[in-house]
Amino acid sequence: MKEIEVRPLSRAAFAPFGEVIEMEGADNFPINAGRCIRFHDLATIETAGEHARPMISLFRAEPCRLPLTLDMVERHPLGSQAFIPLSDRPFLVIVAGETENGPAEPLAFQTRPGQGINIARNVWHGVLTPLDARSDFAVVDRGGDGVNLEVHVYDKPFLVR
Amino acid sequence: MKEIEVRPLSRAAFAPFGEVIEMEGADNFPINAGRCIRFHDLATIETAGEHARPMISLFRAEPCRLPLTLDMVERHPLGSQAFIPLSDRPFLVIVAGETENGPAEPLAFQTRPGQGINIARNVWHGVLTPLDARSDFAVVDRGGDGVNLEVHVYDKPFLVR
Repeated sequence: MKEIEVRPLSRAAFAPFGEVIEMEGADNFPINAGRCIRFHDLATIETAGEHARPMISLFRAEPCRLPLTLDMVERHPLGSQAFIPLSDRPFLVIVAGETENGPAEPLAFQTRPGQGINIARNVWHGVLTPLDARSDFAVVDRGGDGVNLEVHVYDKPFLVR
Repeated sequence: MKEIEVRPLSRAAFAPFGEVIEMEGADNFPINAGRCIRFHDLATIETAGEHARPMISLFRAEPCRLPLTLDMVERHPLGSQAFIPLSDRPFLVIVAGETENGPAEPLAFQTRPGQGINIARNVWHGVLTPLDARSDFAVVDRGGDGVNLEVHVYDKPFLVR
């Protein structure tokens, strides 16, 4: 199996796919008489299509172990999807660019504590993949009418390690 | 000083002011082949006015100690504001109803682990008030043009305990 090496998540590396939601390096300013710092406007929420609206949900996901076999990615043609971890545990972020023949080879990133992500609309990505233990996330994505899911199964699976 | 007693946060008690964002009692269903549970659509995001859009930010807030003196509340006429704690530490949620003469006497709620809140548009509330230690929050509120802040100073302060 072709191997995909997990690399650390960073704003620069993730920029083609969306945003890293983290305090480090973010525009920020004090509010509430200096008792709070606001790290401001860290993600572009996209909600397209009929009756579209942003939604807040909570996800509780079972952990995966590396190495893992990846044979599919999905994307949401009508909206972005933000995942903000409610713990300090890492999760894997698997994304893929777009080619004429569908998704490119996947890239895999591992978060460090304090990093969430916003996957831009129509970007191919793997499902939510916490490491170490069952983990909870705040999720901001799109509600509305229309088909907002496309799935792609790769001809040959990848080994993410 | 008039005393306001802190009570536990619950969906029922908070319903007039917005939503409690928590897994307990929430509509939920499995996704990702059963590896994740989605607690679905837990808050009503409101964004009114010119060029309005929802925003994701992170807040880092200094802690308060009880009892605390409360002399002001604020509200956002153009948008809701959701606070989801990124730790298990409690925070205070201070809100007030509306009377003919401005905000009513405040109510104070204390969260338990796993509880966030969404304060509805135009609801009077206190500033973000973590207890115990400096705490981080994911915040979903409104960006756009127009004046989205009103502040009210009470004639006499309250003692929240």
